[in-house]
Amino acid sequence: MNNQGFFITIEGPEGAGKTTVLSDVVSQLTAQGYNIVSTREPGGIRISEHIREVILNNDYTEMDGRTEALLYAAARRQHLVEKITPALNDNKIVLCDRFIDASLAYQGHARGLGIDEVLSINEFAIGKLMPDLTLLFDLEPSIGLKRIAKHDEREKNRMDAESLAFHELVREGYQEVVKRYPNRIHVIDASKSQKEVTSDVMDVMKKSLESRMN
Amino acid sequence: MNNQGFFITIEGPEGAGKTTVLSDVVSQLTAQGYNIVSTREPGGIRISEHIREVILNNDYTEMDGRTEALLYAAARRQHLVEKITPALNDNKIVLCDRFIDASLAYQGHARGLGIDEVLSINEFAIGKLMPDLTLLFDLEPSIGLKRIAKHDEREKNRMDAESLAFHELVREGYQEVVKRYPNRIHVIDASKSQKEVTSDVMDVMKKSLESRMN
Repeated sequence: MNNQGFFITIEGPEGAGKTTVLSDVVSQLTAQGYNIVSTREPGGIRISEHIREVILNNDYTEMDGRTEALLYAAARRQHLVEKITPALNDNKIVLCDRFIDASLAYQGHARGLGIDEVLSINEFAIGKLMPDLTLLFDLEPSIGLKRIAKHDEREKNRMDAESLAFHELVREGYQEVVKRYPNRIHVIDASKSQKEVTSDVMDVMKKSLESRMN
Repeated sequence: MNNQGFFITIEGPEGAGKTTVLSDVVSQLTAQGYNIVSTREPGGIRISEHIREVILNNDYTEMDGRTEALLYAAARRQHLVEKITPALNDNKIVLCDRFIDASLAYQGHARGLGIDEVLSINEFAIGKLMPDLTLLFDLEPSIGLKRIAKHDEREKNRMDAESLAFHELVREGYQEVVKRYPNRIHVIDASKSQKEVTSDVMDVMKKSLESRMN
């Protein structure tokens, strides 16, 4: 453990069902007496929200990949300082929807900047605070994109607008990241039903939380 | 040389007279037939301007030093991609008011993040594009701050509002940076009159530009 709390991140593409499953998981864990803080970048931190406006602006098609990677790292840093670290210091279990691995997969691999290079600027941002446990929602990109397309209410941002080929590179990137951190990252088959995925996630989390208590 | 053009940066604190002297220098060099592009971060690049709004917002007193360093690197990257690199590729002489050394002195040394760490994220941002020549305007911080205070028309931003002690650390930081890059950086005594400073700057630049021609 990095500290008194326990830090869990959830990774994977849009359309993999992370948000819905997370909401179920938080309810179940809370009912079982766990003290959970559920968050996602930018997490309502005003500086990170402001940075996010720059990153996701649909007009900024001229944005360079390195600019994008540095902006994600900056927003991550501020969210970590203001929200994640205080919660962990307060012995909470923090569930965060996406964190460093997203940058390694999206900017490091899919944008071709290099996983090591993107890792290095993210280490500057997060210091020693790597997640204790990460669940990677794995899904065929074509299925994920179809699911997003159905949700008309969700506004598409600059990242959603990327091609299927880009999202295939993202999946490949996540697979590279799993090879680097096989003990930390557990792959979840997100093509299953929501109920099954929630159950799989609960199993992994409970095992990890219980082993931490011993 | 890094490329076909020639890349000169001007460094030093606010109140050191960089802007006025640069304007004189550009006029003189242009009159002598040099093809100059004069710029300063964020340089009118809309993404960098937007990032700059985040960095300099007076309300954001909670901003972490690492967030600040990453944002400067992001704005620098985009300005470099859109403005500096194209001008250098077009054989221009680029004069840029502040660049990487400012981050090393302000965030690396004065904010205490470490010069090596801040150098590393800036190398991610700029790649191999270090300046060919840098002029550091050196001045007692108390004099610089007095000069700024006189200029009521210039709105004070989050960096200007820092204490004298902070600005003394910035000067110390710049001195550390000079020790690292003694061949690239020339120190200019900015306590002299504007005319003398302009003349000193012209001497160094002309020597450097002429040796580059040979």
